[in-house]
Amino acid sequence: MKLLEERIQKEGRVLPGDILKIDSFLNHQIDVVLMDQLAEEFYHRFACERVDKVLTLEASGIASATLTALKFKVPMVFAKKSKTSNIDDDLYSAQAYSYTHARTNTIVVSKAFLKAGERILIVDDFLANGQASLALASLVEQAGATVAGIGILVEKAHQAGRGLLEEKGYRVESLARVASMDPETGITFVED
Amino acid sequence: MKLLEERIQKEGRVLPGDILKIDSFLNHQIDVVLMDQLAEEFYHRFACERVDKVLTLEASGIASATLTALKFKVPMVFAKKSKTSNIDDDLYSAQAYSYTHARTNTIVVSKAFLKAGERILIVDDFLANGQASLALASLVEQAGATVAGIGILVEKAHQAGRGLLEEKGYRVESLARVASMDPETGITFVED
Repeated sequence: MKLLEERIQKEGRVLPGDILKIDSFLNHQIDVVLMDQLAEEFYHRFACERVDKVLTLEASGIASATLTALKFKVPMVFAKKSKTSNIDDDLYSAQAYSYTHARTNTIVVSKAFLKAGERILIVDDFLANGQASLALASLVEQAGATVAGIGILVEKAHQAGRGLLEEKGYRVESLARVASMDPETGITFVED
Repeated sequence: MKLLEERIQKEGRVLPGDILKIDSFLNHQIDVVLMDQLAEEFYHRFACERVDKVLTLEASGIASATLTALKFKVPMVFAKKSKTSNIDDDLYSAQAYSYTHARTNTIVVSKAFLKAGERILIVDDFLANGQASLALASLVEQAGATVAGIGILVEKAHQAGRGLLEEKGYRVESLARVASMDPETGITFVED
């Protein structure tokens, strides 16, 4: 999506360690007017799917998931990062390894809010190694629900995430696909 | 606001320790259509104010802050709960004591996203003892910006928060004001 690619080119900063900082409009500070346009695009791309709920992971996925859920007029649920490894019987939980922070996070969601038979659209801000999306998909499947699709704002297409998700049969739609990024030479995108 | 009070009566659960659980529609799972109506109400109540940005605290304030910012067509910024006490020079920080969790949280925001002269609308899901709102207001004032107002979804009016905020001269608008709550006898609201 040109609109998002142009904004990433303009304001994104590439830091050593394959880090793309876009916290002036996509996380931390959020350009909600842009985000609403991105949500509209998710709505178009998944319009042919039945979507009963939108699921994301706190905190940086919540803004886009909220606006996307509003387009579909369905509830939004956000999984939480658990501080303890003592998981309650009322929760589904999954492990997500974070390469950025070099640690495994446990993410949880209340069993009350994912139900068998529901079709769940997963929305998240970044896709790189796919660990967060895989963990969210695991929560959906533990509930006996179905992943209706995975909508990503920014994909690092040079990393393994998409492949891992597609192997599992999930449809992935990313609004910007970074082909390469380098602190010196900048960012290139995958051509449509 | 009747719409929100009725929903709280219907789905809210009062737990021992003055806890109001409304995670089926306001946090964890979010009824975004309702949340959009609540954002519209914030927009009406603060329409006479100049609002340059909306500020909230991760994670449970993000949905309402996003939708409210969209009404004003301004950016939304969310303060983060810091895991470390080593605060970076690029951050404003403030302490917020949480009575629910009996600990002090450090909250931070990048200096890049709050600027002198801006008028900031603070939006949060709950107001009880006011510690989170006071900490958010402190971030605004450290930046040399001004608190344009404080919008709260659910206020526990039997607690001290509103008084502390009004003492500092902040205008507080709450969409539901709980007068009393009890696991046995239920919830009553402040009459308008």
